[in-house]
Amino acid sequence: MSAEQREQKKAPLLAALKTLLPAEALIHEPEALHPYECDGLPTYRQMPLLVVLPETLEQLQQVVRLCHQQRVPVVARGAATGLSGGALPLADGVLLGLAKFNRILEIDPLARTARVEPGVRNLAISQAVAPHGLYYAPDPSSQIACTIGGNVAENSGGVHCLKYGLTVHNILELKLVTAEGELITLGSGALDTPGYDLLALLNGSEGMLGIVVEVVVKLLPAPERAQVLLAAFDDLALAADAVGEIIAAGIIPAGLEMMDGLAIRAAEAFAHAGYPKDAAAILLCELDGINEEVSVHLKLVHDLLLQVGATEVRTARDEAERQLFWKGRKSAFPAVGRLSPDYYCMDGTVPRKRLAEVLTGISRLSEHYGLAVANVFHAGDGNLHPLILFDANQPGELKRAEDLGAEILELSVRVGGTITGEHGVGHEKLHQMCVQFSPAELEQFRAVKRAFDPDGLLNPGKAIPQPRHCSEYKSLGSDTLTAPSRRGGVR
Amino acid sequence: MSAEQREQKKAPLLAALKTLLPAEALIHEPEALHPYECDGLPTYRQMPLLVVLPETLEQLQQVVRLCHQQRVPVVARGAATGLSGGALPLADGVLLGLAKFNRILEIDPLARTARVEPGVRNLAISQAVAPHGLYYAPDPSSQIACTIGGNVAENSGGVHCLKYGLTVHNILELKLVTAEGELITLGSGALDTPGYDLLALLNGSEGMLGIVVEVVVKLLPAPERAQVLLAAFDDLALAADAVGEIIAAGIIPAGLEMMDGLAIRAAEAFAHAGYPKDAAAILLCELDGINEEVSVHLKLVHDLLLQVGATEVRTARDEAERQLFWKGRKSAFPAVGRLSPDYYCMDGTVPRKRLAEVLTGISRLSEHYGLAVANVFHAGDGNLHPLILFDANQPGELKRAEDLGAEILELSVRVGGTITGEHGVGHEKLHQMCVQFSPAELEQFRAVKRAFDPDGLLNPGKAIPQPRHCSEYKSLGSDTLTAPSRRGGVR
Repeated sequence: MSAEQREQKKAPLLAALKTLLPAEALIHEPEALHPYECDGLPTYRQMPLLVVLPETLEQLQQVVRLCHQQRVPVVARGAATGLSGGALPLADGVLLGLAKFNRILEIDPLARTARVEPGVRNLAISQAVAPHGLYYAPDPSSQIACTIGGNVAENSGGVHCLKYGLTVHNILELKLVTAEGELITLGSGALDTPGYDLLALLNGSEGMLGIVVEVVVKLLPAPERAQVLLAAFDDLALAADAVGEIIAAGIIPAGLEMMDGLAIRAAEAFAHAGYPKDAAAILLCELDGINEEVSVHLKLVHDLLLQVGATEVRTARDEAERQLFWKGRKSAFPAVGRLSPDYYCMDGTVPRKRLAEVLTGISRLSEHYGLAVANVFHAGDGNLHPLILFDANQPGELKRAEDLGAEILELSVRVGGTITGEHGVGHEKLHQMCVQFSPAELEQFRAVKRAFDPDGLLNPGKAIPQPRHCSEYKSLGSDTLTAPSRRGGVR
Repeated sequence: MSAEQREQKKAPLLAALKTLLPAEALIHEPEALHPYECDGLPTYRQMPLLVVLPETLEQLQQVVRLCHQQRVPVVARGAATGLSGGALPLADGVLLGLAKFNRILEIDPLARTARVEPGVRNLAISQAVAPHGLYYAPDPSSQIACTIGGNVAENSGGVHCLKYGLTVHNILELKLVTAEGELITLGSGALDTPGYDLLALLNGSEGMLGIVVEVVVKLLPAPERAQVLLAAFDDLALAADAVGEIIAAGIIPAGLEMMDGLAIRAAEAFAHAGYPKDAAAILLCELDGINEEVSVHLKLVHDLLLQVGATEVRTARDEAERQLFWKGRKSAFPAVGRLSPDYYCMDGTVPRKRLAEVLTGISRLSEHYGLAVANVFHAGDGNLHPLILFDANQPGELKRAEDLGAEILELSVRVGGTITGEHGVGHEKLHQMCVQFSPAELEQFRAVKRAFDPDGLLNPGKAIPQPRHCSEYKSLGSDTLTAPSRRGGVR
């Protein structure tokens, strides 16, 4: 669409929106639009046609209805912390900001639920319910900033999702505005709800099936005790094996995280967490529950880590040291970022038993492409976050980083894993969807999309590739495409 | 469709099927069809056009493709233990029996998964993996007989689902044959999978979106210890309050079951479990986990039950008594069945805090209709199973039982609950779907159905009512229909 065509589309839309919304809820001057041109993956940038920031549900529904009438695409956005370009605007589309939907509507400590608007920040929920001894379990690294509506769109996880599940496991009910602007309710307070499980379907649907306008979240009682073990290894593969052993022992840690040597040293220089700087890998294993249970599990895991071959196992001395151990882990991304002008964070999953093999493969790919890779990840659920270091100012490096990232994801698929664990497909991983799924599977996704949005107006072009897209990608002749699909691995 | 029309449809279909399948895989003589005319809800009976029992995936796909070509509806059936008529045959349709798909294909003790065919019995999975110290958690009362394919179709729960979740929380991957006969895979071994969550969508879809032909289930380590408490109350409302108090104390029991006086006395006469026969209600509270955790929780719950007003709290002396306490509960349905020529088992959910109020309401309805109601239910997740006693040989009693059941379900909706907790909607509760959901919500369900089955050939007429169905039901003028929808209750 040319600049001229865009202007032709924009003028009548803007005029109509002005009748629905106060002036401050409409952003349309090019300089004011700049802050909205990307999400947490700034590799991709696109100015939207205009930005709409409604304040009430009625305004929001009117905007959606208008866009439906005028066949204008809509991209919804919370805090835009997403890492796969899922909230990347469209040149001919409205960016629908939900920042003003930021109220906690109700807290029910007995039912252990909170009813919140989609723009409420993840951490704000736990802060609001803390006086009742409760918290909201999913804790993505961006939890200070990211919003619950975005968490639903991406089915966000976090350090604690191994034990407490993803967003889908912690949500009871949603209110959704459909592509036509209708308000419907999905799910209920009950463990199961009659009819198809549209609540689960919406989780991770990346803004393509509807606009989430209200969420009922489950709350959990804060555990009586949480304690963390730090284990050092002089061999990455041993650390990977230890992960499988802990799970096989029947223990589900509250968090089980791994960092490799490069990540350890970067994090230590940044956070001074007391990590062993010469280790090839560390594991952080958090155990929570009632006091007695934690004591028993601490001893079990401690002994097991030494048996598997840890060179050192430390229990945090006190709550301050526990927080410090986690501070190192949580600041690992920005810490690694200091090593290099740019970094690219990947997000794949692999079966736990293939962890060691995949880490070796990543190391080989890193050498082949001549780009360093630091590994910081949710080891317990096999969710890798390789951080590829590069310099976008060096000609060709961004392309090389992207190619390396694609190879890592396709390696994950070959061993029976997936191309995203929690960051979503967004704009970034459309190619890899063609590798992950068969044409019949992709067509089933498209049919579901049409069932919610027959005109393709909600975040079009994201998450689910069109057939043409896959045939073009496959014609590039990537040899990974002839590899067995993920099913081979699961068997 | 007249008998003549059916015969006209049957002949060419049968001829074509004979070219695809061995003779013993086809049942078409009227007398041989009789065993297939109902499922676990024998109130509804219908002879199918014919029954097909394929042995291989290829045969199954060929049958589905043929039915698709000839526009013949298909009703899939596992062990047909369902309680809502979900596997009720169609006069002009094929009943597709999956009994021969009964192999356990792979057990992976490290990944803690088993890959099984849909006709494998629920209990057979736990038995097969017991040598590895593992088990499959969801345990519907019918677990000796019911199959995993049916469990997926109904999203089955059971006593342990309060702590360990429903089928949807214990399934990692499905293979599905679509309405067109294509094979697709949904989900993966990873915690999250890219694309829409079709795996969750299939759980509880009651055979209307595809035929499940393979399931990868999660396995859990058998808990180190399980112990049960029995608490007696002289007031049903106090027992209901105790349920909320236990959950509010931050404890998630492995099972938390309630029985009222009528159910207690029937179960005791049948199973000699040692229940207090003069109690108005008992609670069975099972706690499991590591030894220390169970000890701490036993003491907490014991004290709490006495505080709330239990007249007696007993801990099972030994494993034999624990099993006996559960035997009483598990045989409660047949035990109550001995009190009366017939009984009708309902299945609704209500928020835990409304339990006492709803039990009072059921008691009032029971008097009004002149039919006794025994209550045996999963109290922890607010899943009621009122058993309505009646005599089908007394003119009008079946109708009265059905009307009473409908009123109980609609009462559940009014207090913010749902019309089914785990038995599904099936043929039985189509009316109540019109009460539970708005027209826009029902239309969204229908759109999803069309996305999988545009010709409406998979188990048509079940679970999701057509608009005409709802308008006819509403025109009956039931005053419950003007009551606030479930959202009023959840707030």
